[in-house]
Amino acid sequence: MGRVTQRTPAVRIDVGDTTTPTLTHRPDTVAVEEPMEIRVGGEALTVTMRTPGDDFDLTLGFLHAEGLIHTASDVRQLMHCLDADESGSPTYNVVDVSLADGVAPPTARDARAFLTTSACGVCGKASIDALRATSRYAVHADDTVIDPALLVTLPDRLREHQKAFDRTGGIHAAGLFTASGELLVVREDVGRHNAVDKVIGWASRDGRLPLTGHVLVVTSRASFEITQKAYLAGIPILAAVSAPSSLAIHLAEEVGMTLVGFVRAPRLTVYSGSRRTGIPS
Amino acid sequence: MGRVTQRTPAVRIDVGDTTTPTLTHRPDTVAVEEPMEIRVGGEALTVTMRTPGDDFDLTLGFLHAEGLIHTASDVRQLMHCLDADESGSPTYNVVDVSLADGVAPPTARDARAFLTTSACGVCGKASIDALRATSRYAVHADDTVIDPALLVTLPDRLREHQKAFDRTGGIHAAGLFTASGELLVVREDVGRHNAVDKVIGWASRDGRLPLTGHVLVVTSRASFEITQKAYLAGIPILAAVSAPSSLAIHLAEEVGMTLVGFVRAPRLTVYSGSRRTGIPS
Repeated sequence: MGRVTQRTPAVRIDVGDTTTPTLTHRPDTVAVEEPMEIRVGGEALTVTMRTPGDDFDLTLGFLHAEGLIHTASDVRQLMHCLDADESGSPTYNVVDVSLADGVAPPTARDARAFLTTSACGVCGKASIDALRATSRYAVHADDTVIDPALLVTLPDRLREHQKAFDRTGGIHAAGLFTASGELLVVREDVGRHNAVDKVIGWASRDGRLPLTGHVLVVTSRASFEITQKAYLAGIPILAAVSAPSSLAIHLAEEVGMTLVGFVRAPRLTVYSGSRRTGIPS
Repeated sequence: MGRVTQRTPAVRIDVGDTTTPTLTHRPDTVAVEEPMEIRVGGEALTVTMRTPGDDFDLTLGFLHAEGLIHTASDVRQLMHCLDADESGSPTYNVVDVSLADGVAPPTARDARAFLTTSACGVCGKASIDALRATSRYAVHADDTVIDPALLVTLPDRLREHQKAFDRTGGIHAAGLFTASGELLVVREDVGRHNAVDKVIGWASRDGRLPLTGHVLVVTSRASFEITQKAYLAGIPILAAVSAPSSLAIHLAEEVGMTLVGFVRAPRLTVYSGSRRTGIPS
């Protein structure tokens, strides 16, 4: 437990005002994101991507928000299912809930669909494996390269088209660019995953999948879910204005995507696939 | 359609460095959040809270990310179900998908649970009504008042306890305070809804529900989902560092919660329930 943050290799690039960008190779600390499965009486109810820690509180809070319990005494017992990852270490990523007598169990209607096809285990690795099995595109083979000096300018270009953000200060955006910096589409939404779905849905409707050679820019952090959506659309480069999560980085590494975070001119940080930013790896 | 942003009454308070806060009553523009239901062949698949617009692209992108379609030609037709709200106006909040011949329909496993119990219609009003029906606490009757000069200081107090944020710059937090400013618990998570679930789960486990007289502070925006979780736990005051959505404000108004956004000393904006900030309404 206590896996709240994690160190990860990273390359900071400062394109500054010289012709040669400054590179700094140094580990960065990122927030850990891991799936957690909640079971009630052994039956899977949901999987949420969360930062490990306080898992029993997360479970109680989730059950409460879903209206499945009203007080903590509606729960008889909470336990971590002792599932293990491939190396045999416990993942602590499954919480099994025993409801008190007389408390109605969730119906099938309450149960959520989820990507992982876990037996007992659920861990980031399983999520990534399940995803790799379903993708149709060889993102790792995409040899697109984008100049970091161009890449750092894309969030400002996106921002110029964020009409609703200007008026509200509270809406996310996703934008699709070519590697030469042409902006193809911008979508805004209160949900950052929705903004990405709208961009990829547009590309699908326009017959553009897979999005080989494209860059997806998001105004938010890069979570597993956002990275997954980009991967499934065949996008080789994901650039986030804010931080990436641990699992987003792992996914990008596994499938050969380039993941760039904290893209704020004149700087950005490369977490995976630095070759596409022209840096020898 | 085109309901991307919306004007809403608001009161800006600047506690400045005088003993009397400056009040400015003026409409604010907020991002619209409305539920959208996706149906496949008439069967409900999911409900997502989104900003209206580009709903067909959102639908295609969602189906793609879930692996239910691979190209736009896997979909034969997309249409808005002509559901109407109580005034008879179409909501455009239900999209029905007809898959092409030979494309496997989603299984029950793919279908998501959701709160609304819509017949054909799904709109913010229906979501709020469903929620009101399930809450056990009379939040509207909570007469807690908090001094705006204290309220604006809470995010900085929360920030002092955000250990993971300091290291990563990419993690949300939620904190529970008493109305006199005592910090009871802080939880961090990559998911802002998880951070809130952890706080409310803690309170539930500690036998503190309903959280009458408490203030929930979140480092993120205030969405419908976050507001809902606070309401179901009996919290009268929700304070967000960033913007609220339209539906979060509607919910807060309907159930008598105080919703405060852009809480950044020395200023904040009150969107609902200003009486709890000592302002005559």
